[in-house]
Amino acid sequence: MKAHVYVTLKTTVLDPQGKTIQGALKKMNYKGVEDVRQGKYFLLTLEPNLEKDKVKAEVERIAREVLTNPVIEEFAYKLED
Amino acid sequence: MKAHVYVTLKTTVLDPQGKTIQGALKKMNYKGVEDVRQGKYFLLTLEPNLEKDKVKAEVERIAREVLTNPVIEEFAYKLED
Repeated sequence: MKAHVYVTLKTTVLDPQGKTIQGALKKMNYKGVEDVRQGKYFLLTLEPNLEKDKVKAEVERIAREVLTNPVIEEFAYKLED
Repeated sequence: MKAHVYVTLKTTVLDPQGKTIQGALKKMNYKGVEDVRQGKYFLLTLEPNLEKDKVKAEVERIAREVLTNPVIEEFAYKLED
């Protein structure tokens, strides 16, 4: 089983890295991009044969306690068999 | 319209950052994680009222030419209205 965890800055937090990418895209003549925000992506490979409920709880705990800085970031995750 | 772009190291490329996270999780007593790989996540906000085909082509071009280092990385993307 795999878990995809996406960590992004909260929308209220300024993202200078994203702004830099957006500026670069504009200068390089890519059209139509209004905004860019950068985040992190983690692919966790989990042991097989675990109960889905347990996996869910564990992934959520890892995302919340280790992968995310709760002051400025938020996370989303998706499980995949 | 929004585009979610996920950039990851190719599976053949060693990911020391992911390995470090995996080691940390193990030491911190989180169970069941066999492997961790870290990637980047970009959220592009695109101008409204663009044709879906055009957006798709443009996002693909941006991901391929700007956001990804084709030597060691690969990308996936998802469009959302």
